[in-house]
Amino acid sequence: MALNDLEVLPRNESGISTAVDVLKQRFGEQLKTSQSLREQHSHTMTYIPSQLPDAVVFAKSTEDVQEIVRVCAEYKVPIIPFGTGTSLEGGVNAPAGGISIDLNDMNKIISVNEEDLDCVVQPGVTREALNEHLRDTGLFFPIDPGANASLGGMAATRASGTNAVRYGTMRENVINVTAVMPDGRVVKTANRARKTSAGYDLTKLMVGSEGTFGVITELTLRLYGIPERISAGVCQFDSVDGACQTTILSMQAGLPLARIELLDSLQVEMINAYSGLEYEAKPTLFLEFHGTNAAVDEQIEMFNSFAEEFGGSGVQWVDSTEARNKLWKARHDAYYAMLAWRPGCRGIATDACVPISKLAECIAQTQSDAEELNLVAPVVGHVGDGNFHITPLVMMDDADEVARAEEFIERLNLRAIAMEGTCTGEHGIGQGKRRFVRLEHGAGADIMMSLKKAMDPDNIMNPGKVVGL
Amino acid sequence: MALNDLEVLPRNESGISTAVDVLKQRFGEQLKTSQSLREQHSHTMTYIPSQLPDAVVFAKSTEDVQEIVRVCAEYKVPIIPFGTGTSLEGGVNAPAGGISIDLNDMNKIISVNEEDLDCVVQPGVTREALNEHLRDTGLFFPIDPGANASLGGMAATRASGTNAVRYGTMRENVINVTAVMPDGRVVKTANRARKTSAGYDLTKLMVGSEGTFGVITELTLRLYGIPERISAGVCQFDSVDGACQTTILSMQAGLPLARIELLDSLQVEMINAYSGLEYEAKPTLFLEFHGTNAAVDEQIEMFNSFAEEFGGSGVQWVDSTEARNKLWKARHDAYYAMLAWRPGCRGIATDACVPISKLAECIAQTQSDAEELNLVAPVVGHVGDGNFHITPLVMMDDADEVARAEEFIERLNLRAIAMEGTCTGEHGIGQGKRRFVRLEHGAGADIMMSLKKAMDPDNIMNPGKVVGL
Repeated sequence: MALNDLEVLPRNESGISTAVDVLKQRFGEQLKTSQSLREQHSHTMTYIPSQLPDAVVFAKSTEDVQEIVRVCAEYKVPIIPFGTGTSLEGGVNAPAGGISIDLNDMNKIISVNEEDLDCVVQPGVTREALNEHLRDTGLFFPIDPGANASLGGMAATRASGTNAVRYGTMRENVINVTAVMPDGRVVKTANRARKTSAGYDLTKLMVGSEGTFGVITELTLRLYGIPERISAGVCQFDSVDGACQTTILSMQAGLPLARIELLDSLQVEMINAYSGLEYEAKPTLFLEFHGTNAAVDEQIEMFNSFAEEFGGSGVQWVDSTEARNKLWKARHDAYYAMLAWRPGCRGIATDACVPISKLAECIAQTQSDAEELNLVAPVVGHVGDGNFHITPLVMMDDADEVARAEEFIERLNLRAIAMEGTCTGEHGIGQGKRRFVRLEHGAGADIMMSLKKAMDPDNIMNPGKVVGL
Repeated sequence: MALNDLEVLPRNESGISTAVDVLKQRFGEQLKTSQSLREQHSHTMTYIPSQLPDAVVFAKSTEDVQEIVRVCAEYKVPIIPFGTGTSLEGGVNAPAGGISIDLNDMNKIISVNEEDLDCVVQPGVTREALNEHLRDTGLFFPIDPGANASLGGMAATRASGTNAVRYGTMRENVINVTAVMPDGRVVKTANRARKTSAGYDLTKLMVGSEGTFGVITELTLRLYGIPERISAGVCQFDSVDGACQTTILSMQAGLPLARIELLDSLQVEMINAYSGLEYEAKPTLFLEFHGTNAAVDEQIEMFNSFAEEFGGSGVQWVDSTEARNKLWKARHDAYYAMLAWRPGCRGIATDACVPISKLAECIAQTQSDAEELNLVAPVVGHVGDGNFHITPLVMMDDADEVARAEEFIERLNLRAIAMEGTCTGEHGIGQGKRRFVRLEHGAGADIMMSLKKAMDPDNIMNPGKVVGL
């Protein structure tokens, strides 16, 4: 899909019209068809234009979802699950129309099992709401994609973020999901045991399936004890390579980095301007250690010695919640800092992830591309995972710039794949990256298509996403 | 399946006979049909009787596997992948006959990527051979199911073992697999990036599929830095509950336990007798910490204070490789200690795994069952995961004892499922637990069957295992 294009799929007009009528009868005020609400439910944070669903139903229970799915199944009408609408690849768009199921009213925390370090939640609970609820337990849920996303949506897209280097992604932290399947059956993918060999891994099949196999209506998540001490630091380097080599050495030495984020010098300039900070305009690592007092002291000492070896300087460590929050807010505001840097632009999200040994080279070649193609494209990266986001800032009415951005993204994704990596480490395929699934997976893409056919033979679950037609 | 029964599936006699002829032509001395070799390839370590394949082919490459699979696909002949034959649920049996593919000659370590903390291996490499090869790199592969299993087999059964509480299971440590699918296509499930959101999780679909979707011919595994210090300890309690509560508190406090193994007093008596040790006959934890010097000191101190709170006593910590090896050898020899305790018996493997809050209760009720049913059944447990093996020691020619053991296992598996756990934490379903898949998964078992149908429409891949007919 080109940046300004929208793939439009054939619409089942009569089915949609009948299903909307039937659902209206059943759900009354829970169903809305206003233009503004439908727009809001196909809005994405990115450049991808909206494709509106025909109606939005606000589900309040698994039974509601089951009933909506049964009606849609009967009339072969598309279903698009909706959480907070913060997906970055058009996951909530409705290229063939259909029913958006809004899950925000399903926002109960069903249980917190402190001894088991897990909790059971409805899909509309956001990660911030969960952590707020957990405050008095000494536990927390670490996955933090930046946006205050819904946990159901995070599971559906296999999200991660800054803490993944220590705590894993949604892949490692979802113990089970309950989902309504395309024929209306309710399936729970596993029990609450922390490990299982009882047959095929249905949990991992649902995590990252982007709503194309079913609608998640409940999920069990791993929790962690809040560490005794958290220390955050900022370390600046002369080169991206120095920052990457420091990270590699830290990981080989088994340093339990809780976060390690790279910003290139352009991105540092942008956050300086946006957040009133005064970092040097150099490649910079923002990082954090979690642990006991003595352990964190030791980790800081080891990290400092590694960083020094690769030209790192000016490391300052802060422990207080206030100082840490200020530091991470600057990192989390990177996206807004970009947009403010070039007013009127769109930031085109990219999400390459490569083996860490190839990260510095991948970033360097991609920065060269940006220069050659005359694009403004700052870098932030979850460098411990080999995942980085270089974001061309594009004026969408400048056809030449749009074309150059397309060329840039094409090169980046092919480069990541050629380096034994992936075009998407944490955003998902959605509509935006469908073309690259086949390039990346080869015959695996055929397997994916046969899974889709087996799980959703009528192709009603979020059609036009991942490998669905 | 009752303990002494064997489910026999219909045999495709003419297909098998033709396929063996064709393969003999092609593979010559790589194909064997001697009785002893066929017996060895269906032998399991457990009570499950052997069901012989019709021929064994020793594959030397992915291309060999591909050719064998194509021939078997053409004549609709079962394929049973074989590693070291240490699976515990009849995974290598051939209930419908067919071709056993022996993968032991595919034992090359293809690459070790030290900076990326991963390696690429053929499926016949054993975990000990890999760690031997890694010795000079400062890296290691932690998953340790006890037996010196092949890494392909460990991936196929989603194995784990004593280190899972810290390092996860094969689920968390397989980055990708290359597999020959039932139609002969070669599929690589993912690239080497440490995380990916690029479509459905084919890697996790293959891990734990027990050879029912395809034959793994290559895999990429995560590696870890060898910790600066390893300390192992033994701590004895008055009750299983005290040992469990100490474990729960340690995990809530974020203590990075690398191993924590429970032995009940009966099992302690057995290892004392077998290994010439002198532990008190009390519930006992064997545990291990990995980390830097200061961190391990701190962890030991915290653990000691928790253990004291719950009546733990006599903790002794050892650091030297020799002393640690002696300690863990006693734990790893638990199975042989059991068999020696009651000469002539078979140990019936069980593998319940429950949320840790329910572990002490689950063990206590199961021990009561053993007493009520007059069975000798010692307990070892990966207590940090909520996973325990209670092993009735049964004289297989005593029909009454066999019947009581069946009743015992039935109650145990139903109890684990009722406690939101699973009948198998790490052994897999194989033939032995097929009946429990449906009880545990409900409608999920139907989804599993439709996946099996989509992946292997002719049901040639390890038929009669997991949910296959």
